[in-house]
Amino acid sequence: MSLIVQKFGGSSVSDAEGIRRVAKRIVETRKAGHDVVVAVSAMGDTTDELLDLAHEVTPIPAPRELDMLLTAGERISMALLAMAIKSMGHDARSFTGSQAGMITDAQHGSARIVDVTPVRLREALDEGAIVIVAGFQGFNRDTKDITTLGRGGSDTTAVALAAALNADICEIYTDVDGVYTSDPRVVPLARKIDRITSEEMLELAANGAKVLYIRAVEYARRHNVVLHVRSSFNNNEGTIVYNPDSATGRPGIAGGTDETVSERKETVVENPMIAGVAADLSEAKITIVGVPDIPGKAAQIFKIVAKTNANVDMIVQNVSSAVTGRTDISFTVPMNDGHRVMQALEAEKDQAGFESLQYDDQIGKLALVGAGMRTNSGVSAKLFEALSDAGINIEMISTSEIRISVVTRADSVNTALRIVHTAFGLDADTAAEVHGGTGR
Amino acid sequence: MSLIVQKFGGSSVSDAEGIRRVAKRIVETRKAGHDVVVAVSAMGDTTDELLDLAHEVTPIPAPRELDMLLTAGERISMALLAMAIKSMGHDARSFTGSQAGMITDAQHGSARIVDVTPVRLREALDEGAIVIVAGFQGFNRDTKDITTLGRGGSDTTAVALAAALNADICEIYTDVDGVYTSDPRVVPLARKIDRITSEEMLELAANGAKVLYIRAVEYARRHNVVLHVRSSFNNNEGTIVYNPDSATGRPGIAGGTDETVSERKETVVENPMIAGVAADLSEAKITIVGVPDIPGKAAQIFKIVAKTNANVDMIVQNVSSAVTGRTDISFTVPMNDGHRVMQALEAEKDQAGFESLQYDDQIGKLALVGAGMRTNSGVSAKLFEALSDAGINIEMISTSEIRISVVTRADSVNTALRIVHTAFGLDADTAAEVHGGTGR
Repeated sequence: MSLIVQKFGGSSVSDAEGIRRVAKRIVETRKAGHDVVVAVSAMGDTTDELLDLAHEVTPIPAPRELDMLLTAGERISMALLAMAIKSMGHDARSFTGSQAGMITDAQHGSARIVDVTPVRLREALDEGAIVIVAGFQGFNRDTKDITTLGRGGSDTTAVALAAALNADICEIYTDVDGVYTSDPRVVPLARKIDRITSEEMLELAANGAKVLYIRAVEYARRHNVVLHVRSSFNNNEGTIVYNPDSATGRPGIAGGTDETVSERKETVVENPMIAGVAADLSEAKITIVGVPDIPGKAAQIFKIVAKTNANVDMIVQNVSSAVTGRTDISFTVPMNDGHRVMQALEAEKDQAGFESLQYDDQIGKLALVGAGMRTNSGVSAKLFEALSDAGINIEMISTSEIRISVVTRADSVNTALRIVHTAFGLDADTAAEVHGGTGR
Repeated sequence: MSLIVQKFGGSSVSDAEGIRRVAKRIVETRKAGHDVVVAVSAMGDTTDELLDLAHEVTPIPAPRELDMLLTAGERISMALLAMAIKSMGHDARSFTGSQAGMITDAQHGSARIVDVTPVRLREALDEGAIVIVAGFQGFNRDTKDITTLGRGGSDTTAVALAAALNADICEIYTDVDGVYTSDPRVVPLARKIDRITSEEMLELAANGAKVLYIRAVEYARRHNVVLHVRSSFNNNEGTIVYNPDSATGRPGIAGGTDETVSERKETVVENPMIAGVAADLSEAKITIVGVPDIPGKAAQIFKIVAKTNANVDMIVQNVSSAVTGRTDISFTVPMNDGHRVMQALEAEKDQAGFESLQYDDQIGKLALVGAGMRTNSGVSAKLFEALSDAGINIEMISTSEIRISVVTRADSVNTALRIVHTAFGLDADTAAEVHGGTGR
């Protein structure tokens, strides 16, 4: 008998009907002979509604109390889900994060998991029950207070449970069919990816693919949890996310890790190098003009930026001018952080010694991701050529071992996405069906 | 420094504004130099909405999961209340029933408190925090599951906390000014009672006064907790409910118990015998006609009734007929139980040997309550005379040491209430202001 962890997001359990539908799906897995542990998010917009309520009461809610408040959301969905399953004749028990042994640090609102002690879950499983766990929440041993894991918390809960319970697979149910070579709403011929490495998935998620949270993928990679991203609206096979480097990889329902690697190698033959292309329109570009080209200047500037806690992504430094001995440094940050970073830099302009600042939020970022790039030269050339042929100007370039990112004008990025998708042979024969609205 | 426990019901915290108003009130108590522990109910109709949701998912929700679901309600209100207080510059911490050490048996939906271990509450108080506790909920040590206390649970939570923490007083905030000599919506000259014994309060509550739950009053009496029932909409003094027999009675803000007794004695002089008059229109009368007047017959019949779990109130047996050797037995039960009881009796009619059944739900019950009755004869005579003068027929009579109840036609009971209120000198000089809708 295998153990399957399943995660259902808020859009899958937005009302009583959704809850019954998900319950039925869980029961089917149980009937197929598996032990089942479910991590569930709050229903639909519950979390946002509770946040609104908190802000009606006070503009800056106390973090401890905000976590206490928000965790009511999953308490509702998990209890309803458990009673739905019980009404279908199967034993089910719901557990809060604290009851499930989800132990975190004390950072309210964005707690990190430090340990998982699922004693009660094991007992319930041994007694034949289906286990329902509140996603997104944990508790701190020292303060004994309730915590929440922050954005993507329920995905992380599911992965952490899968790791702690040594589950065979962790199924992430969402409103799309899996991970696509690109966003099907922009690239109609985007193709569902059958198998992708966690490393590639990380790069795609970090560059705008919204189907999985980076944090959950990282956790899965570190603990060798095999993920299966699939739709809660049909029974199609979704996308397997696995760690090919795993020495102790679990066999999983998806087949062993070794087998996975060899399968992947076969796939490489017909679909070389590239796993997918992602786009991101949420960043802004800041350019620092006329930075003295002397050692320590870049460090000084990025210390100023670091103090704002902004998440700096791409950094590009131009060749310095032989005439002025000065250079320009550009970097991208999330738009939400842009204003704060500009203020911080402006305030220390004289001390840092640069000439001026430019802010540009009309940029788009395109990232080409594939583990095959490591051993395959010519990818960059092909990318640049495809963009050039389409008359799309490249403003910044940055690369990692398995990724090439370029910045273009915001209004060119979707065109760029389609062109690159085609150029690298990723197009499917027919257009993908698009479910849901947000791709999450 | 004294310790005050305050209980706020759902109607006091029905929205963000209500929560801020209650928070302000709590802060005022704190500023007056008291330690404060608050028991709070779920906001407005939250509990009913969660119940509706559960019934949308399944007609018969599993009790364990229903408790898990419903306890989300107080989790929301207590967190919001704590953050409101914190935003006013005072430390506040919210605690679930389980965190507060509210230990119950495992009877989901109507758990009984078996122990209160408020270790974390004491710590928080010692650190100067205002303590907010979720009403209505607890947990069971053996199953480690969350439980709810059932109807009136938040009142009971407050009283249990007051007892466990040795509080000076337990303030029950409601939408009326206190306990009245009768329902002010029916008897305009009803007078707010300043002090009432817990025994009298129990009789009033059991006979239709809705301001306090019987269970909370019983708990308060057993543990010598002094209650102060008052309005959350003004600062008027409400009604003190105390146990005059308490040997270890706490001094309380309301003055010592001994003093209380002597004050009460003084009051008795000008307001003899009667604490209040209550009416109840929620019962039905069942008459069993032609019961053989032989030993054991009544026992046999009430065993049948007991099996239905109906709550039998008044029982009256007529003098048996010398001719037939048979008698009639009448009793009252809550209307909700009426049909069930009739079915059970009908099914065993032949074995029980009675002739027929009559069902009458057009009855009203009036109860006159006062500890002074014990030492004062003539109360019944005065009551019967007043009703007779008004042409109101009495259908059943039942008495306890401190109560006389009579059953009349339903459409006479409000008139009877006003007449009796006047006859026993309870009328105030001016009509009471009526707040709120339900008297709760």
